[in-house]
Parts: sequence; structure tokens; C-alpha cells
Amino acid sequence: MSCFLSFLCYAQFIETHEVRPCFLGGLYIFMDNSSFKLPKKDEKRLNTLYETLCERAGSFLGYPSNTSYDYAGIEKFLSLPINNIGDPFDGNLYGVNTHEFEREVLDFFAKLYHIPKKDYWGYVTHGGTEGNMYGLYLAREMCPGGIVYFSEDTHYSVPKIVRVLGMTHIVVRSQPKGEMSYDDLREILRMNRDKPVIILANIGTTMKGAVDNIGKIEEVLHENAIRQSYIHCDAALGGMILPFVKGAPVFDFRAQIDSIAVSGHKFIGMPFSSGVVIAKKHNVERVKTAIEYIGAADTTISGSRNGITPLMLWMAIRRLGQKGFKEQVTRVLRLTEYTVEQLTQKGWEAWANSYYNTVVIKRPSKKVIKKWQLAVQGDIAHIIIMPHTKKEQIDGLIADLYHP
Amino acid sequence: MSCFLSFLCYAQFIETHEVRPCFLGGLYIFMDNSSFKLPKKDEKRLNTLYETLCERAGSFLGYPSNTSYDYAGIEKFLSLPINNIGDPFDGNLYGVNTHEFEREVLDFFAKLYHIPKKDYWGYVTHGGTEGNMYGLYLAREMCPGGIVYFSEDTHYSVPKIVRVLGMTHIVVRSQPKGEMSYDDLREILRMNRDKPVIILANIGTTMKGAVDNIGKIEEVLHENAIRQSYIHCDAALGGMILPFVKGAPVFDFRAQIDSIAVSGHKFIGMPFSSGVVIAKKHNVERVKTAIEYIGAADTTISGSRNGITPLMLWMAIRRLGQKGFKEQVTRVLRLTEYTVEQLTQKGWEAWANSYYNTVVIKRPSKKVIKKWQLAVQGDIAHIIIMPHTKKEQIDGLIADLYHP
Repeated sequence: MSCFLSFLCYAQFIETHEVRPCFLGGLYIFMDNSSFKLPKKDEKRLNTLYETLCERAGSFLGYPSNTSYDYAGIEKFLSLPINNIGDPFDGNLYGVNTHEFEREVLDFFAKLYHIPKKDYWGYVTHGGTEGNMYGLYLAREMCPGGIVYFSEDTHYSVPKIVRVLGMTHIVVRSQPKGEMSYDDLREILRMNRDKPVIILANIGTTMKGAVDNIGKIEEVLHENAIRQSYIHCDAALGGMILPFVKGAPVFDFRAQIDSIAVSGHKFIGMPFSSGVVIAKKHNVERVKTAIEYIGAADTTISGSRNGITPLMLWMAIRRLGQKGFKEQVTRVLRLTEYTVEQLTQKGWEAWANSYYNTVVIKRPSKKVIKKWQLAVQGDIAHIIIMPHTKKEQIDGLIADLYHP
Repeated sequence: MSCFLSFLCYAQFIETHEVRPCFLGGLYIFMDNSSFKLPKKDEKRLNTLYETLCERAGSFLGYPSNTSYDYAGIEKFLSLPINNIGDPFDGNLYGVNTHEFEREVLDFFAKLYHIPKKDYWGYVTHGGTEGNMYGLYLAREMCPGGIVYFSEDTHYSVPKIVRVLGMTHIVVRSQPKGEMSYDDLREILRMNRDKPVIILANIGTTMKGAVDNIGKIEEVLHENAIRQSYIHCDAALGGMILPFVKGAPVFDFRAQIDSIAVSGHKFIGMPFSSGVVIAKKHNVERVKTAIEYIGAADTTISGSRNGITPLMLWMAIRRLGQKGFKEQVTRVLRLTEYTVEQLTQKGWEAWANSYYNTVVIKRPSKKVIKKWQLAVQGDIAHIIIMPHTKKEQIDGLIADLYHP
């Protein structure tokens, strides 16, 4: 019997027979599961949960989670105990992995961020935190005693990571629209020139979608004659937007950055969190050599790793490619422009940073915030335009602002 | 149109129409995806991968990944951008989460590990590393300047975690069968009584399935009059075995442990890695208060978190319950005993630690190692008996040992 069974047949089979196929020794052996069925009332609870989540996912405008993804065909892999344990570039013992597909995903991002294949190392993470933690971990090992600098608009997970890694940090002031204040950075560095400098740059802040300018950061480092520095880019959302916008500031390896983290569940979209981290290979190798003597040569932070997310990313990349993503970004930025225009025209304060999909608006009523699931901060809220966002939703939100 | 659509209809619909339903504003809107289809050659690659992985998953005896799980019905959730971001016990802004189900999963484990509901805190992690990292992170914050002690049979990810957390450690010698040497621990502690003691205990070592005895560790701490200590249990696999074996040593909150991590993809089984960490609530709260002032109040290490794994764990728990898991463990330990008996009878060196499912054998030929995907270390190999393991596979392996 062939191992390959279309998911449809598989599902039909289960419905009729109440047993499930189980691959052992290359053959299907049918195991009776009837004594351990999910109780009917629990099935109902799952169905209710599904309906509730559908409803919630259908109306949010405040979160950067793309819902218009398509991974049809992935379901059959859920029957396999896949684990991408360890380094995706090492041949390893546990055979049920998708490392080959993961490496192709990494190659895609390496190309997108302009680092030659031979010069990078990376892996598919469980999300933004792991990617940023990996970047700052490398930074700590490369720049012992270094201080981490990031703007006050930085995501709350960054000080958490800095704490976990036992590093110290200094918060840099932001400009009103959320970009790092380079004047403030200059002033702070002047007083801390004796310590290595680690910069965490936001390629898109969470609330205002502001992009820290790597060129300007480099200038400030240069002015202060900083010899030892490391730049990590948190490009969770922006890492899939800026590469596709003409004229957007350079934030990748063409500049002096050392590592970059991007999320998989944000612009690309996914049923669970994931991310990609790409770093300069020679840094990774130096750190690896340094820690091998303690018997901890594992290069990834997580040991066991999700092997389905690399497959999903691979599918998205193969389906859309740079061309498809560019089309999505173009459409998204056009709708962002439309949103700002319409709101301004209707007299509701609104603006967006250039090259980005986040519209900052004057905080609306509680009812509107709840209905459209907007994220708020003080007297502002934001709308994040994603590939799934429809003009009709924007129009609906605007209508609600005045007639809530 | 109701949001709930059986997966079967959904799959059939996709097959016929090449469009996909997409929930927006509570209504299905059909989006034309035809221009961004997965190329035929890529579909073929996915199918080949599936067949290869099926084959590999069908013949391994060396890894603790249960393949006989059953999550039929979960597939429809893959269309939703679920994210269990942050603390599962906090009401939070992002509505597309499964926190309610996650809390029930945590309650199950809290009960299993004998800690009252009001006294614990925990969350579903992305795997063993995150759970152990969380435990050691809490330990570091509770016992500043503490040294981490673990046996030489400890998993290689532990020194990695210690390194990431910027802690120091001392490796304790093991007894021949893999259990920590309490004599060696006693001797080391005698020389380090001035520093807080952090113990990472193995509730099942990876290679030999040895269980460190918490009672004996406590005795050693007591003998050395250690005032400040923290015990974290790495119970990745054993945390789902020992609670179901009469007479097994106590490794949970009935003893003086502070936190415990167990894997979801090991004994329970899952298509991707996951885990559960349970800790004493008052420790978590002390650490939380201490770090809130730096604006990093996030209690989980990962920010964005997989929301499908808690659902899967919930399904397994509701299907099997303590009774079902106990049946599985009983069957597994019986087969472990059978394996040792058969091997010994046939003259092939083999043994297993009590209360555990790992059979350590004299290293066989390369061909046998490859065919049955055994994990090896020096002159030994191991067979891990899991709920999916069949007597016929054991017999097959034994036959191969002598006629490879």
C-alpha cells in the first residue's frame, strides 16, 4: 500500500471507520482508537471555539496577522512527528525533518536581505522573540560588556530579552513619529564610548510603524569613533515590506548590520507563530567555537523545532515569490494611502510613516476599538493594513468613527 | 452562511474550485488565488517529502516521538491566525487565541504534579529548551549568584541554556546507569556552600533513561546546610511516565522542587515540538514584580506563542485522561521488560532503568543502527519504547542484530 494517501480519502476513511491509519515499518497498521474518542461535548466545545475565532479573525484591523494565506495540502503532514531539531545545515540523526525545505526558505531571505549564500547562517524560529534573542545573544558574545541601545518605541519584548540574556541597556529617545532620535543616540554614546555598542534597530515599530535609519545610526557610530559594535534589526513586519518598496531606506546586509529577524506569521501569515533569523556566518562560527568546549555546540536557541512552519514558508515563497510579495505590498501601501486620505478628508486625525502599512489615528470610542479590534496607546490607535484587508472594511471603520 | 464548515466539505470545495474561503467581517468572501498557485513540480516535491517522512517515521526505535496520536478535527484551525501571545492567565487584546484551552491543559499538569491550582503558574512552550530556560531563568532571579549543578548525563541543551542565561555551572558525576552521583554532589557542594544552589534534575536522562532522585538531592542539600536553593526538573519524557507508575520516586511538587518542564511532542506525540512548564506562582510573581520597572512584565519567554499545540494537548488529555495515559504507560513498560528479556535471552547485552521506557543495548552494526534509526553513544545504543511501538518491531530488530 502506498504511503501517500490524499487527505480527502484519509478524512473520509476516518469518518466512516473510526480507526486511524498509522505508519509502522512502512506499512499502514490500523489501530483501534474507539475506546479513546473525544467526548461529544468536547467536540462541541472545539466547534464553538472555531466559530468564535472565525468571528474574531474576521474583523480585526489592529493586528499585523495576515489571514489570507493558503497552505492547502499541508494537512497530511500533521500525521507525522516532524522535528527540525538543531542546525538546519547539519546532517542530523533524527530523520523526520524538513531541513532541506528550511534551507531553501533561508536562502530566499538571505537573497532578499542581500547577503551571499556562503556568508550567512540562519534558522526558522518559533517567532520574533527567539529571533531577536538569537541576534542579541550573538551580539553579547561578539561584544562582551556591550550596552544594548534601542528607542523608547521598541517592543516590550526587547527589554525582556535583554534581561534574560543578562545584558544592560539604555533607552534612546524617539522622534514624535516613532523613529529613533539620532541626536539623543549621539549624546548617549558620547558618554559611553568606552563600551561596545549594540544597536537594536526597529524596522517598523509596533505602534507607529517607524523605521530606524541604519545609515544615520552608522554615522553616529562613526562620529563617536566606536570600534566595536553590532547592529541587529527587528524586522518582524517590515522585513517583508521594505524590500519591495522602491526608495525605502536600506536596512539589510548592504548596510553594516550583523543580524536580522523577521516574522513568518505577520506579513506572510500562518496559523501559528514563526520567524526567520539571518546572521553573518563568521560571527556564528566564532561564537560556536567559543562555546563548543562547554559541550553546548547547538547553534539554535530552541533544540526541538517546528518543522511544519518551514514547509509553510516554503509554500508561500514558491507560490508568491518576490513578484507576488511585491504585488501584495504595493496593494497594501495603496490601501494605506487611501485610508489616510479618507480619514483626513473626513476630519479624523491620521498619518502613516513612509514605506509602511500602519495608520496612526486619534483614539476612537471604546465601541469602535472593540468592534475593529484596534490596538491603542494613550490617545492614539492604529490600523494595520495587511494583504487580507479590504477597502470595504476601511470604509466601514470610518463610517463607525462618526456614527458609532 | 455559518462560519463552521466541515473540513471535508472545505477540502472538496478547494479541489473543485481552486479558490479558498476567507472570513472577513464574519462572512466568507471568495478570493481568487489562481494566479498564485503552487507550481506542479513543487506539489510533487511535497508529495515526495511526505512519502520519505512516512517511511522514516515508520521505522524508528531510537527516538522518544510518539507517532500514535490522533488530532482529527484540528485541521480547520489551520485557517486561523491563532496566537496565544503572552500570559495565558491574562485577558489580552489579541482575541484569536486558545488561552481558555491552554489553562485547562495547565490545570491537568498541575494536578498531575501535585501543586494546587491557586499555587502554580505555567504556560505551553515551544519545546523542552524553552521550558528548561524558563525554569533556570526563574532560578537565576530567585538565587542571584547561584551555581547550576547537573549530572554529566544531562542533555546538551542544558549547558547551552546556562550559557545563554549568563549563569555558571558545575557538572556532577553520574553513576554508571546514568543517575546523578549524590556522593559527588555532596563533595562539590561542600566546597561551594557560600553560593546558592540551583539543581537541574533529570527525570529521565536522554541516553539511559535515568531518573535523578529528588529525595536524595534534598538530603545532600540538607547535610550541607544550604539555605538558598532551587530545583528544576527536566521531565521532558519522564514527566508523562513516572506519574503513572506505582512506586516510582517522587519528582514533583510533593518534593521540594520549584519548577518542572515536560514535552508535548514526546510521550503524548505531536506533529511539532511543544512543552509545558509549571512553576510555583509566588516565585513567578516575585520575579514579575522585580522586572516590571524595566517595562518587561511579559511572563512568558516567547511573546507570540503557538495556539494550536495547546489545543492538541487538550484533545489528547480529553481523549485519554489520566486513565488512558496510565494504560499507555503500563503497556509501554511491559514491552520494555519484554525487550530486555528477549535481548538478554538471545545473549545481547541489554538493560533498562526502573520505571522507564529506555532499553540500553550494546552498540549494534551500522546497518542495524540505520535501519531502526537508533541513537548511539560510544559503545552503547538505546531503544525507546513508545505508545506506538509494536512487539513485532522489537522482534524484527532482535532478528536483525544477529542476521543483519
